[in-house]
Amino acid sequence: MGKGGMSIDDHGEAKEENMAAWLVAINTLKIQPFKLPTLGPHDVRVRMKAVGICGSDVHYLKTLRCAHFVVEEPMVIGHECAGIIEEVGSQVKSLVPGDRVAIEPGISCWRCDHCKLGRYNLCPEMKFFATPPVHGSLANQIVHPADLCFKLPDNVSLEEGAMCEPLSVGVHACRRANIGPETNVLIMGAGPIGLVTMLAARAFGASRTIIVDVDDHRLSVAKSLGADDIVQVSTNIQDVAEEVVQIQKVMGAGINVTFDCAGFDKTMSTALSATQPGGKVCLVGMGHSEMTVPLTPAAAREVDVVGVFRYMNTWPLCLEFLRSGKIDVKPLITHRFGFSQKEVEEAFETSARGGNAIKVMFNL
Amino acid sequence: MGKGGMSIDDHGEAKEENMAAWLVAINTLKIQPFKLPTLGPHDVRVRMKAVGICGSDVHYLKTLRCAHFVVEEPMVIGHECAGIIEEVGSQVKSLVPGDRVAIEPGISCWRCDHCKLGRYNLCPEMKFFATPPVHGSLANQIVHPADLCFKLPDNVSLEEGAMCEPLSVGVHACRRANIGPETNVLIMGAGPIGLVTMLAARAFGASRTIIVDVDDHRLSVAKSLGADDIVQVSTNIQDVAEEVVQIQKVMGAGINVTFDCAGFDKTMSTALSATQPGGKVCLVGMGHSEMTVPLTPAAAREVDVVGVFRYMNTWPLCLEFLRSGKIDVKPLITHRFGFSQKEVEEAFETSARGGNAIKVMFNL
Amino acid sequence: MGKGGMSIDDHGEAKEENMAAWLVAINTLKIQPFKLPTLGPHDVRVRMKAVGICGSDVHYLKTLRCAHFVVEEPMVIGHECAGIIEEVGSQVKSLVPGDRVAIEPGISCWRCDHCKLGRYNLCPEMKFFATPPVHGSLANQIVHPADLCFKLPDNVSLEEGAMCEPLSVGVHACRRANIGPETNVLIMGAGPIGLVTMLAARAFGASRTIIVDVDDHRLSVAKSLGADDIVQVSTNIQDVAEEVVQIQKVMGAGINVTFDCAGFDKTMSTALSATQPGGKVCLVGMGHSEMTVPLTPAAAREVDVVGVFRYMNTWPLCLEFLRSGKIDVKPLITHRFGFSQKEVEEAFETSARGGNAIKVMFNL
Amino acid sequence: MGKGGMSIDDHGEAKEENMAAWLVAINTLKIQPFKLPTLGPHDVRVRMKAVGICGSDVHYLKTLRCAHFVVEEPMVIGHECAGIIEEVGSQVKSLVPGDRVAIEPGISCWRCDHCKLGRYNLCPEMKFFATPPVHGSLANQIVHPADLCFKLPDNVSLEEGAMCEPLSVGVHACRRANIGPETNVLIMGAGPIGLVTMLAARAFGASRTIIVDVDDHRLSVAKSLGADDIVQVSTNIQDVAEEVVQIQKVMGAGINVTFDCAGFDKTMSTALSATQPGGKVCLVGMGHSEMTVPLTPAAAREVDVVGVFRYMNTWPLCLEFLRSGKIDVKPLITHRFGFSQKEVEEAFETSARGGNAIKVMFNL
Repeated sequence: MGKGGMSIDDHGEAKEENMAAWLVAINTLKIQPFKLPTLGPHDVRVRMKAVGICGSDVHYLKTLRCAHFVVEEPMVIGHECAGIIEEVGSQVKSLVPGDRVAIEPGISCWRCDHCKLGRYNLCPEMKFFATPPVHGSLANQIVHPADLCFKLPDNVSLEEGAMCEPLSVGVHACRRANIGPETNVLIMGAGPIGLVTMLAARAFGASRTIIVDVDDHRLSVAKSLGADDIVQVSTNIQDVAEEVVQIQKVMGAGINVTFDCAGFDKTMSTALSATQPGGKVCLVGMGHSEMTVPLTPAAAREVDVVGVFRYMNTWPLCLEFLRSGKIDVKPLITHRFGFSQKEVEEAFETSARGGNAIKVMFNL
Repeated sequence: MGKGGMSIDDHGEAKEENMAAWLVAINTLKIQPFKLPTLGPHDVRVRMKAVGICGSDVHYLKTLRCAHFVVEEPMVIGHECAGIIEEVGSQVKSLVPGDRVAIEPGISCWRCDHCKLGRYNLCPEMKFFATPPVHGSLANQIVHPADLCFKLPDNVSLEEGAMCEPLSVGVHACRRANIGPETNVLIMGAGPIGLVTMLAARAFGASRTIIVDVDDHRLSVAKSLGADDIVQVSTNIQDVAEEVVQIQKVMGAGINVTFDCAGFDKTMSTALSATQPGGKVCLVGMGHSEMTVPLTPAAAREVDVVGVFRYMNTWPLCLEFLRSGKIDVKPLITHRFGFSQKEVEEAFETSARGGNAIKVMFNL
Repeated sequence: MGKGGMSIDDHGEAKEENMAAWLVAINTLKIQPFKLPTLGPHDVRVRMKAVGICGSDVHYLKTLRCAHFVVEEPMVIGHECAGIIEEVGSQVKSLVPGDRVAIEPGISCWRCDHCKLGRYNLCPEMKFFATPPVHGSLANQIVHPADLCFKLPDNVSLEEGAMCEPLSVGVHACRRANIGPETNVLIMGAGPIGLVTMLAARAFGASRTIIVDVDDHRLSVAKSLGADDIVQVSTNIQDVAEEVVQIQKVMGAGINVTFDCAGFDKTMSTALSATQPGGKVCLVGMGHSEMTVPLTPAAAREVDVVGVFRYMNTWPLCLEFLRSGKIDVKPLITHRFGFSQKEVEEAFETSARGGNAIKVMFNL
Repeated sequence: MGKGGMSIDDHGEAKEENMAAWLVAINTLKIQPFKLPTLGPHDVRVRMKAVGICGSDVHYLKTLRCAHFVVEEPMVIGHECAGIIEEVGSQVKSLVPGDRVAIEPGISCWRCDHCKLGRYNLCPEMKFFATPPVHGSLANQIVHPADLCFKLPDNVSLEEGAMCEPLSVGVHACRRANIGPETNVLIMGAGPIGLVTMLAARAFGASRTIIVDVDDHRLSVAKSLGADDIVQVSTNIQDVAEEVVQIQKVMGAGINVTFDCAGFDKTMSTALSATQPGGKVCLVGMGHSEMTVPLTPAAAREVDVVGVFRYMNTWPLCLEFLRSGKIDVKPLITHRFGFSQKEVEEAFETSARGGNAIKVMFNL
């Protein structure tokens, strides 16, 4: 608090002074007042303490769009977050002011078939932080449903709480691919998504995880985070067949599940070809829309392709992984910034530059 | 029997005289003697009565290859078959001479992981009729394991028994896609595979089945066989988006599962785009190896792609469907031939020509 | 309408005059005014047209309790119902006044783990019609969430719509037991629950359904409704072993799933013993708390026991079954009454007497 | 070798001299010659090095029966074993003489539905070591199918290899109950089966495992082996309700799966009552046939009961758990004996006495 003069008065005028980082134009973020909605009976008001920058946040900043979503009005950015409860609605029994919580960013409708059938991540009415026209959470305070705020175990920090969001992508992918102690896992791509997927796969008990990338720095990070082995490859799609042999030799056993965390024609071709009959390829990375890949031979070996969209019901499991130490996300946090106009700009530039930045985190 | 002078002596010299249709060179089938192997304790000797021609048989005849299999030695053709038990091995208790049986053509090893885990269709040691170097079943008699010979119910004919093989492809696809009374099914392609898949989907209780093709004759056959609705489309890949809208309008509800029984870039693009979030696309048709398709947006809606390879454990269910009348395969048998050199040639020409031929059947 | 002078004014004073059947003491139902709650933005107001009597309604009338629920304040009875939309809340887009709807009676919280994980029937905060302290639906009008009101297909009557509730029990049981075309089904008990389970099993494509009871009238009803075969047994628990042999002989094949729709030690013992290795027993009937049954030998054959509690997401499927004619519930409706004090009393007496009464229905 | 003069000649006369422990009468084991069958093309001949004593072995010794199996002819005892390959059949490619292997004791038929459907443990034709009339493996040498002999990783000892058999029971139970990182596990009974189930549950990633017993020594062993918590209870069935509260308090969260590894009315009652709605009870322990338990209230909370019979496809996973160190079975081996007449008698007495003996192992 108090960083950059953006702190709020604790004596009752919080709502008027609440500030947030608004995406107002391409490459333009402004810290401006953000009026909070009325606190509903099942809502809580949370003082944000840690907010991470996601690749999609950067994408919105650079282009005002992401997939088919377009920013048409100024929008508060940010969706990987944790904070401290300030106030609870009249019906909230699970939380009290002072509780430290990790926040799940999407509010689903609970009236559509997807919600009722237990796949609320597919809800067409989903209101998701920083997905236009819904505001995000890079703000001093937000109002959110209590059931999407998960109390942190004592040994889990607020920053780690904010990391539940990217980690959830890996956890959801592992659930969809049914990872367990009998699964040999191959991961294509050692970027942030590849890394959280690798951490999750290990926590789900995968017997062996091998990670593939073109970049040796990324691979060395992956190795230090626990990958059983790493394989460096080229970007040349002609090399797929040869690299499949190389990867299979490193695994030394059938590859049951491959996560494509890059989403290129080449990575997906390798994924489809390297996975053993009856296995699964899980497409996590979002690349080009059209893909040219050897889908028929994979299907003829009953290698299935499973997709992932965000996540559902992942926070309790992420927190359990963090509490028990099965996953340590702290090494992923490479840069930290305060919540001033200047630092917000620097933080996004750092994240956009990539390089050795994995996760850039705001401490509010 | 007695057709074309190829009949065998019923008084004990059967083995010496056994004749079969051998693929000896491109476009060359010859009826020649076929020496039967010794009858093992768990085997039966079966007099073939009905053998259908499959597209893969025609493909071997035209090219001596299919997928990665190559015919390098003369090989007996044929694998869709039913017959009558002539002799049973010393340990066989389930069958007696005179029993009418439908025959599952693949013998798996039962020692590999796939066999032990209940996915024997993926067995790398599989010995499958008319898949080189294994001989097929277009012969007067064959020797086969008793547990792959399934007794026909009284009201199921030998020709219907032979149809269990192509029907099994549809049944296995429906199992992999988990078809049931809550599934709205779209089928791309009204060829033989599309038709058996449609019949199977209906027998699995699919709430609604719609079939798509470019050919109006095929579509009218599909309609007469029970499709709830049909949609005629073009071969022009530019039309995918428009046709998806058209198909979805005909369905009038979410499409839960799409079977691509054609395997073209266009049919697979339509399949991926038309299926609702959380649904499945099952790739049954084997087209080109490389496919250019919108895989990423499908994955981002958690539309999964499941493959199929042959089938497993399908004969009992096929026979139950035929017995109960839930499926009637008789209308699929459009042409019949005897087992003479001339008729074998004519039959394969008829099947190769396509046109209004769906299933061409030998009566031996 | 107009039955028993209980009709309401259609010109705007509906709420003041709304009448309902109140359970006020043991064996005492009174038609009295029932004040409707305010219509929320996602709610609808429905004029009730058909309400069925359930065994639990009768149980509450006779004892003021059911399982661990106790009626401590006067409570409106009834929960099997259908009606016509009178008014819709400001946010309701799926329905308009005049729509005929079947009504799912339970409102879950959508904040607990069970709701979020897709098993909302296990929600501990469930508000369920006529389960104290929540009022039921035997009333002129009710207010209910729009997403729990399902539009009837044109060819489905309001009475059939009300039957979706008991039918849902059978549908949910079939889902939990994974009934499909490869399942031979045994049903213990030909009461209302046994009958709806049998109808549902057939609609899920069960290859064969056999139903067992002590009462030959019930069995003849079951046969007329489509059971493949029936078996009459005794109430003497000594006869279990012998009856298992008898039942297995009638099935003539392995029994994959047995539904115990009675819940006695004897029926459950038969269920556990008759089901083949690897099969399932689904306990639908609620009998005594403690059961003395051969659980160990069943477990040692990997016969699993699955329980059912109410249902979830069943209305769309029930309506599809009724629309398509896969299920006909009309023969289950054996008695009809109007909504006057006298008729309400008579209707409950009829239902309580049992005999040839299966479903007693109010037409309001 | 050489223990008790029972060793065999290494120079070619092995088969004549092969000795085994024969169960010849109640309480009477005799070391006598055991003629090996001919080595088939897919078989191997194995020199036994480590054989453990199972509770069922002791039961056969004391009563000549176990469940419905009766020893009617002298039978070689023993089925938990590992050894070294001496000779391989003509078709065996996976093993060579000198390989150290853990041995799966059951040979299934691979012709019945259960085998083909991937549940070979339910095969009615199963030939299982030391289950009459099939001989066991407490012998100098045995002949066995190569695909049931699993090569030991370098860091896994022969004794640990023999432990794969009891461990398989726990692994199979965990698979049937679908244990993973989101499962809070309760285990009733800290005997050998309870302990291997606890070890397996931890290796499957169970978030928390609590074990319950009446014996404080057993509980302290369980704690030292990794149980997160232990609860000591009484044998008095009146105490169930109170103990359920106590156990749930210790867990401090919902119990998702309970393994009843004792099989008493009391333990099963606790299991059924303590498990949360939607959870599972897995009955591993084999007690009395008839059980008097609160099955109805459990079913009404959709607590399912799943059974286990032996195991299938567990050896590769057990060896992976031992190799990786996820499971350490060495502390379970409390006593060791050689293979002389006297030591065999002492070993069985030690195992029968129980006390601090968990696993009694022969070193041959």
